[in-house]
Amino acid sequence: MVEKNMQQIVAVAKSRGFVYPGSEIYGGLANTWDYGPLGVEFKNNVKKAWWKKFIQESPYNVGVDCALLMNPQVWVASGHVGGFNDPLMDCKACKERFRADKIIEDYLDEQGTPEVVDGWSNEQMQNFIKEKAIKCPSCGAHDFTDIRQFNLMFKTFQGVTEDSKNVVYLRPETAQGIFVNFKNVQRTSRKKVPFGIGQVGKSFRNEITPGNFIFRTREFEQMELEFFCKPGTELEWFDYWRSYCKNFLLSLGVDENNMRLRDHSAEELSHYSNATTDIEFKFPFGWGELWGIASRTDFDLKQHQEHSKQDMTYFDPTTNEKYLPYVIEPSLGADRVTLAFLCEAYDEETLEDGDTRTIFRFHPALAPVKAAVLPLSKKLSEDAVKVFDILAKEFNVEFDEAGSIGKRYRRQDEIGTPFCITFDFDSLEDQKVTVRDRDSMAQERIAIEDLVEYIRERMAF
Amino acid sequence: MVEKNMQQIVAVAKSRGFVYPGSEIYGGLANTWDYGPLGVEFKNNVKKAWWKKFIQESPYNVGVDCALLMNPQVWVASGHVGGFNDPLMDCKACKERFRADKIIEDYLDEQGTPEVVDGWSNEQMQNFIKEKAIKCPSCGAHDFTDIRQFNLMFKTFQGVTEDSKNVVYLRPETAQGIFVNFKNVQRTSRKKVPFGIGQVGKSFRNEITPGNFIFRTREFEQMELEFFCKPGTELEWFDYWRSYCKNFLLSLGVDENNMRLRDHSAEELSHYSNATTDIEFKFPFGWGELWGIASRTDFDLKQHQEHSKQDMTYFDPTTNEKYLPYVIEPSLGADRVTLAFLCEAYDEETLEDGDTRTIFRFHPALAPVKAAVLPLSKKLSEDAVKVFDILAKEFNVEFDEAGSIGKRYRRQDEIGTPFCITFDFDSLEDQKVTVRDRDSMAQERIAIEDLVEYIRERMAF
Repeated sequence: MVEKNMQQIVAVAKSRGFVYPGSEIYGGLANTWDYGPLGVEFKNNVKKAWWKKFIQESPYNVGVDCALLMNPQVWVASGHVGGFNDPLMDCKACKERFRADKIIEDYLDEQGTPEVVDGWSNEQMQNFIKEKAIKCPSCGAHDFTDIRQFNLMFKTFQGVTEDSKNVVYLRPETAQGIFVNFKNVQRTSRKKVPFGIGQVGKSFRNEITPGNFIFRTREFEQMELEFFCKPGTELEWFDYWRSYCKNFLLSLGVDENNMRLRDHSAEELSHYSNATTDIEFKFPFGWGELWGIASRTDFDLKQHQEHSKQDMTYFDPTTNEKYLPYVIEPSLGADRVTLAFLCEAYDEETLEDGDTRTIFRFHPALAPVKAAVLPLSKKLSEDAVKVFDILAKEFNVEFDEAGSIGKRYRRQDEIGTPFCITFDFDSLEDQKVTVRDRDSMAQERIAIEDLVEYIRERMAF
Repeated sequence: MVEKNMQQIVAVAKSRGFVYPGSEIYGGLANTWDYGPLGVEFKNNVKKAWWKKFIQESPYNVGVDCALLMNPQVWVASGHVGGFNDPLMDCKACKERFRADKIIEDYLDEQGTPEVVDGWSNEQMQNFIKEKAIKCPSCGAHDFTDIRQFNLMFKTFQGVTEDSKNVVYLRPETAQGIFVNFKNVQRTSRKKVPFGIGQVGKSFRNEITPGNFIFRTREFEQMELEFFCKPGTELEWFDYWRSYCKNFLLSLGVDENNMRLRDHSAEELSHYSNATTDIEFKFPFGWGELWGIASRTDFDLKQHQEHSKQDMTYFDPTTNEKYLPYVIEPSLGADRVTLAFLCEAYDEETLEDGDTRTIFRFHPALAPVKAAVLPLSKKLSEDAVKVFDILAKEFNVEFDEAGSIGKRYRRQDEIGTPFCITFDFDSLEDQKVTVRDRDSMAQERIAIEDLVEYIRERMAF
């Protein structure tokens, strides 16, 4: 296995059309990224895989797709208006702005006593910075303003005046769209508890320190499930979804050694949670949180019941009980897990003849291009295109007639295409083609009429 | 065919879980809508169908997925900062705010001389309103402020201060993400002109008069293609895509009588366009624009070349020419066409026995639920679930064991499920099931092992 680094992966992602810097011709816009032709296919496949496992195949779950702009009262109830803040302070000397908790964490790191600064009050942080005479990371001065809380929600104005009654927020998470629709969904889909509601969509957080490529961005996409169950059964269901998430990653090719499950300690748990696990992935820059799975009790539904004055309880027709369901929330960042699959799959390999090849070892379900149709000679293009047309009805495929077969194989390896299909002069006679496997480089002869099924079987997971 | 009206379709959409009012438990948020369990499947199928035809199957096109937040210079170059305005004025008596052009159009409508007020200057509109003594639609006074131009872009702030240098906009269209990436995509995907780049994603316009359910909303989703071709060939390609779009709608079940192609007259054309056609659909509230297909010359690339100072030309390796490609843009609203398919499919039918049924006659490719597995008796549930599990690996399917078979058929008709699969006592022996067709209500006996292929064939389009 090759040693991977982010710089290289960012460069490869750009040069092959996975991810470009956003608004690049205008010098970019801090930390925005655009998915190119391969990137959009790849990320869409990741989202489809999630939807397949978490919605389509699950007998419990259904989906929704809620508006990104919601009534601002939603964010009062959820706690985001009051408490979704970063503690910021300015250096009076150089005017740069920093997150106080990050400055302290960096300081502790340097001292060899790493600690997560979570739940400290502004006063505690200010005192600590003063006591230790921590310096400005930018200019070295020790002259900070007091800490102010800065809300992380993007604010905008709906309607024709920019006054406070028209303020709306870009949603900071997809979860609340699910909670406010709990009754609508339960009623119209006639679901009985336990059942879940999933959503895939964009969220926005005005972080001052985004970074690590598409790992942390202000604009990002989430894949969230809110699973509603009877109080008392939530820890069983927590275990169920915790395993389900882990198996999802394993089944799509994440190595067990690049994954770890970190259970939150009692001190780390949110006040409303009785169990939380982070699934972390070993990125080239270190371990990073991929999936948060939290048992959230009835906190969210209770908040909305109080603030909306609407009844959010569920009536259980088998036991005649009425209760607020408890919630298990597996929350995954689509861009983040796309990056994880990208890093996991990247490889360089020295071949028997001494040549090297770079390769993305994507699971066929995730590969942006499922197969490439390669006529052995340009004289065969017209017939080979017919094979392309058959496959293009079902999958995203490429047609490539430029250069030697060896070169074309390398090009497909570089973008992770699992199957190269060579159409040769014999194909005209026997209606068979040679299928070359990306990883083993083994070749086999397959009838054209069996190709769709051949690929489909290998995409199953 | 039943007479359709919007009120009924909105009610049906809500009660069956297609579309709910957004943030409903908080009294909503003006003109936002949430897609429920059936709606999200349905709209996703519409988007997948577009992607299949316009990206996957097309030998010309590739996709992208760009950040919604872009460098503000993009919107200067595109003309949105300067010219994307509504002419608004306030009634001094009742303080209501109106679009001047709409007030004039309503007035002309009433006079029996309907006209589209397009391209009038503020002065022209003010004079006309004064001259005709047009009254406030709300209070009847005739005392308006002067007209002011109100920009339709949603404004927000990225970063930690709300000053002008941090202003960014929510994109008002997906097209510009494609134009700014023209060179990146061309280079990395090695595409030769003619080729196209498509994108599906959210856009935002701060309209003061949204309405007609999901036809016009401030937050909406677009499916846009920008097709780049050699100058001089653009009108051929314009015809190509105009037919392609029309055939897309026909192939998915839109009746030719509910569709019309309106070519823009010379006066109506934008200054940079040499051909534009709107495909209109006959909604229950009247004809509405569905798809705009415009030949935009090199306007967009030229604007970005000027503003970004980056070379946006294409070098043609076969002719050794260098030029700015011309662009054909078929632009479609995802929510709008979803509404069109919903309206098109809705039907009520009186059966032979005098019973009536309501039904969505969705094309199987678009139907939110492809099949429902119905055990004839609860004793058969355990075995019938195995059929559900096989199908759920491939499609979104339902399992329903509640109520008489007749009732379950009606329920599936109401949500447009094309195939009802009854598992009976014979199924245990012969491993066959009865498949009932939604539209003809004809039944046939199919082997369980052939079911996936049976459904897949009928989803093809």
